Amino acid sequence: MRNDSAEPNGIDDMRNIAVLGYGVVGGGITTVIEENCAKIRETVGDDVCVKYILDLREFPDSPYADRVVHTIDPILADDSVELVCETMGGAHPAFEYSVSCMKAGKSVVTSNKEVVATFGVELLECAKENGVQYLFEASVGGGIPVIRGINTALAADQISSVNGILNGTTNYILTKMRTESRTFDDVLAEAQVLGYAERDPSADIDGIDAKRKIMILTALASGKLVRDTDVYTETLRNVTVEDIHAAEAWGGAVKLIAGSVIDGDAIQVHVCPMFVPWSCSLAHITDVYNGISITSPVCGDVMFYGRGAGRLPTAGAVVADVCAILSDAAKMERNPVFVKADDGCVKPFDEIGFRCYIRANAGQVELCEALAAYCDGTEVLSDKAGVVEVITGKLTKPELDKIRVQFAGIESVIRVLD
Amino acid sequence: MRNDSAEPNGIDDMRNIAVLGYGVVGGGITTVIEENCAKIRETVGDDVCVKYILDLREFPDSPYADRVVHTIDPILADDSVELVCETMGGAHPAFEYSVSCMKAGKSVVTSNKEVVATFGVELLECAKENGVQYLFEASVGGGIPVIRGINTALAADQISSVNGILNGTTNYILTKMRTESRTFDDVLAEAQVLGYAERDPSADIDGIDAKRKIMILTALASGKLVRDTDVYTETLRNVTVEDIHAAEAWGGAVKLIAGSVIDGDAIQVHVCPMFVPWSCSLAHITDVYNGISITSPVCGDVMFYGRGAGRLPTAGAVVADVCAILSDAAKMERNPVFVKADDGCVKPFDEIGFRCYIRANAGQVELCEALAAYCDGTEVLSDKAGVVEVITGKLTKPELDKIRVQFAGIESVIRVLD
Repeated sequence: MRNDSAEPNGIDDMRNIAVLGYGVVGGGITTVIEENCAKIRETVGDDVCVKYILDLREFPDSPYADRVVHTIDPILADDSVELVCETMGGAHPAFEYSVSCMKAGKSVVTSNKEVVATFGVELLECAKENGVQYLFEASVGGGIPVIRGINTALAADQISSVNGILNGTTNYILTKMRTESRTFDDVLAEAQVLGYAERDPSADIDGIDAKRKIMILTALASGKLVRDTDVYTETLRNVTVEDIHAAEAWGGAVKLIAGSVIDGDAIQVHVCPMFVPWSCSLAHITDVYNGISITSPVCGDVMFYGRGAGRLPTAGAVVADVCAILSDAAKMERNPVFVKADDGCVKPFDEIGFRCYIRANAGQVELCEALAAYCDGTEVLSDKAGVVEVITGKLTKPELDKIRVQFAGIESVIRVLD
Repeated sequence: MRNDSAEPNGIDDMRNIAVLGYGVVGGGITTVIEENCAKIRETVGDDVCVKYILDLREFPDSPYADRVVHTIDPILADDSVELVCETMGGAHPAFEYSVSCMKAGKSVVTSNKEVVATFGVELLECAKENGVQYLFEASVGGGIPVIRGINTALAADQISSVNGILNGTTNYILTKMRTESRTFDDVLAEAQVLGYAERDPSADIDGIDAKRKIMILTALASGKLVRDTDVYTETLRNVTVEDIHAAEAWGGAVKLIAGSVIDGDAIQVHVCPMFVPWSCSLAHITDVYNGISITSPVCGDVMFYGRGAGRLPTAGAVVADVCAILSDAAKMERNPVFVKADDGCVKPFDEIGFRCYIRANAGQVELCEALAAYCDGTEVLSDKAGVVEVITGKLTKPELDKIRVQFAGIESVIRVLD
């Protein structure tokens, strides 16, 4: 697919790629390629040239103004383009464009977690059928090389669980709530003004972004992509400053944890706020940073940490995938492979017990007696001014729902990461 | 090199490997291969069989008793052995055996940081000349996939610095000193009884182990392997409980940091105890855990964390390299490449300024006046009962040496990781 003849467009002795979507990440790609051209040339063996940029907008002031196209057609028609970076976001038309590019013999690299979490199985199959590559290191954890970490170094190992702080916006909000004792709404509003949170913050604060990322990581770790609807997802909106202070008094921090447990063929995936003890490295991850902890019998806990988003880290991960493909390294890597998880192998969240932090306007005796009916080992954290705080034994969601009905005074329930 | 004919030894339809040195890591290799045989078969395409174990000892009770040999010759002579795991430790005869194996057409995988730090350039050249692979993921960070992390995912990026907690024993000692307010000697003696520290603890506590590991990581990051003697290395023996408490009061922890700075062609590598602020993830790494933080303009700070040693994590990393080679993945990976650093590119440690924590039996005014001659911005932490504690501006080693002469009352000097 290399172009060895001089092109009218004037791009020769180059490996040509196209970028779909010239937003934050797409713009970062051209920057990274410019700034690291020597290192990229050394890795790939040639210069890499962004020959087309697909976007609905024009960029008259950009040095790439003349590369901008408004339909996918010229890219599909140009055999000199061997690889396409899809940084559009959203499932559609990213899915259709990616399929068209692969059918035209072009490898595709993406930062788009939604399209991978939704159509990952179809996209990997399409790549295989067309003898091209489909890579998505940038879809999870920005510049943190966690997907290669799972795929290559852990190749001789069975992963038993993945727990991550996968959304920088919510971790920033939780950090500010803790250090400045400010309410969720207050910090969110500020984050929106500063541009750290979207005007519609739902994807971040309701756990949707984290859910897509843990679906991808779990698919790599288990070989099975679960459905969106199989992931128990709890919003962060209800977490209060009191909860965060209670976690500190207990010995940890509140974090939005995206987790999965892989037990043979059975998989369970969830996203919810959790009490994370200081003994767990994830508790110490603050601000917009992400962390992913992977547990296996051989390696124990391995954690990856870094900026989980942002223009350059994410673009850097896209360009690393570009280099892997253009240097032929990706052909021989243990590439991502997963199939759709069938209904039988997804363990319902309702069956999983977690220790929980409960704060209630209730008497200690009554609450503990009610909890004793469901679990052993409830530990009282404090009991003053009519407010009792406990860490319970393991409780399932249906049990928690019943206890909530029994105690109208329950103010807060947050699971514990053990 | 594969053996497709039935062997008298009865090992057929297998990929045969040998293990040199059946100690802690070597023994872990057979365990990992047994316990993860399904995953390994899936990765490699065949079963992997340990056909020979080279050790001076006999292991009559081991299921591998009949595989034990006492010289390298039968391994070199057996063409069905395509890969050798060198887990002997020490530079010799590990170097000579590894060269012999590669000359006999066998790839070599090692967990031996001493041989890589000493002869890494020669061993990689030898692999190249003989068309085989030489991999050493297990030589740094046990089960933490940091070498692949540097080599593949950061392929499009320039690494500007590496900072690591690379020795679990010293980190365990520092953790115990902090949490139990016990002296260095006391905790070291206990660690020796428990088997966490060697009877001769010098390699750990004098920074030699950490030095070898940072030499390897820096070689991967910069393409240049510095000499042992180019690494400024300071023992941990002089760190006191007072220092650790002072770090806490300041807002961080004392850690044995192995660090390097890569600035274009100039490299600087050092190992020394440092004040690490809580804002840096490395400060939160406790017990025997290791952490490696890599900084680059594109990705910012990326950190890898996990058990840096131990039988199974280290053996798991060896087996991951075995799988990479036997599945042909390693052929196309961006394999480790580095050359010897020439004298010109190693920046002398004496030229590098660090902020420092200084505790002295002296008057605040006198100490600050003396420091003012060398650096700006000295900050007084405390001044009571004739003991003054300060954080200085940036000071080089020669400057510190002069100040020590000037102030006989200086009890402690520890650099700050900024």
